[in-house]
Amino acid sequence: MTQNIYDDEEFFQGYSRLRRSVEGLDGAPEWPALRALLPNLSGLAVLDLGCGFGWFCRWARQQGAAHVLGIDISEKMLARGRAATIDPAITYTRADMERLDLPADSFDVVYSSLALHYVENLSGLTAQVHRALLPGGHLVFSVEHPIFTAPSRPSWSLDAAGRKTWPVDGYLNEGPRSTDWLAKGVIKQHRTLATYINMLIGVGFAIAHVEEWGPTEEQIAAQPNWADERQRPPFLLVTATRHN
Amino acid sequence: MTQNIYDDEEFFQGYSRLRRSVEGLDGAPEWPALRALLPNLSGLAVLDLGCGFGWFCRWARQQGAAHVLGIDISEKMLARGRAATIDPAITYTRADMERLDLPADSFDVVYSSLALHYVENLSGLTAQVHRALLPGGHLVFSVEHPIFTAPSRPSWSLDAAGRKTWPVDGYLNEGPRSTDWLAKGVIKQHRTLATYINMLIGVGFAIAHVEEWGPTEEQIAAQPNWADERQRPPFLLVTATRHN
Repeated sequence: MTQNIYDDEEFFQGYSRLRRSVEGLDGAPEWPALRALLPNLSGLAVLDLGCGFGWFCRWARQQGAAHVLGIDISEKMLARGRAATIDPAITYTRADMERLDLPADSFDVVYSSLALHYVENLSGLTAQVHRALLPGGHLVFSVEHPIFTAPSRPSWSLDAAGRKTWPVDGYLNEGPRSTDWLAKGVIKQHRTLATYINMLIGVGFAIAHVEEWGPTEEQIAAQPNWADERQRPPFLLVTATRHN
Repeated sequence: MTQNIYDDEEFFQGYSRLRRSVEGLDGAPEWPALRALLPNLSGLAVLDLGCGFGWFCRWARQQGAAHVLGIDISEKMLARGRAATIDPAITYTRADMERLDLPADSFDVVYSSLALHYVENLSGLTAQVHRALLPGGHLVFSVEHPIFTAPSRPSWSLDAAGRKTWPVDGYLNEGPRSTDWLAKGVIKQHRTLATYINMLIGVGFAIAHVEEWGPTEEQIAAQPNWADERQRPPFLLVTATRHN
């Protein structure tokens, strides 16, 4: 079972104070880029893997999605999501992404924001998602970028000239990384970018778009402290399509 | 026009002494991985972009390729390639990859080893290659990996604990990088991995495989000084297929 760090009280309290938790989708700087990868959701069946507080589920319904299923492992997040939702076309279900059993040919869009890097058995999940999509359906997801997850010491270094650099090591050595982020010992799975792509191709997806996200000039003008994020991308965004 | 650094006498002399120049394909550590991406070449029409001394062209003919066209900008390299070749089914042609005019629907396989990162107008070249391939044909290429090309100071750093790290900066800022490798001021084009992939998809390729190359355990056992290359991949290998 994936470490359920979101139900750790210290982590949950910290996570609840993040901008993306307080303000929802618009509090996440990568959201405009991720949103741009989505098709028009009107009338579509949508699945959100790692739905958290349900911000995306509710937004998808506002866009006209026919129904939305949100899945998460965290009881605390689902409870808050349910409390914020009065829409019978949104269902929140607790499940472990390591062992999902999704209905076949059931969704037009599967969405996942910053959740898949917690999953150990990602190849199993990827195959499940492919099977759960309708032919022509799309998987749109974000994860922490492999350059971001690789290092043994994931923090900025200053070189001799005072320049900030991101100290990459261990990039090709995939597996768990333990970081102290909101709580001690948060476990994420480091995978190379090639592994994400080949895993998708291997189960029958066509890669439609890959984005190594960094803030735009406009975002940096509004939030100057984000400028460093262009030195190395914090997030990887992918659209993959089930063909046939 | 792409900087023709291979005809610089100092660079050419240095390049000629590299293992991959003296021993050919087997002197390049990434060759087994690149070879594994190629289809059976028997009876196929093959194009090599940046053929250099012609090692791959001659190998392709040994594998039964029907004919092989090698293209390079360097007169010195082509002269040596021609001198090493007595095979009328191999043609070497001098051309600038910035402005190729390839015949349409003519090749089963287009191959390129560590050449495309010199090309400024890569989107133009990619479209040309797509058009030059037969439907179902493959583009198989290697370039320096974007993690390798990004840094303003591309050399290993030692952190406070004495660990080697690769100091990434400027990853999202694409464009020329000047390095002193064999000669001063060698210009390569830094592109993100996403740009390579989206450019291929954009002209009509399907991504078939992506590999972020590092040495295998066996290679490190034979060449212990290659171990660092697993900290960050030096090369990116891609197979893309023209569908329809």
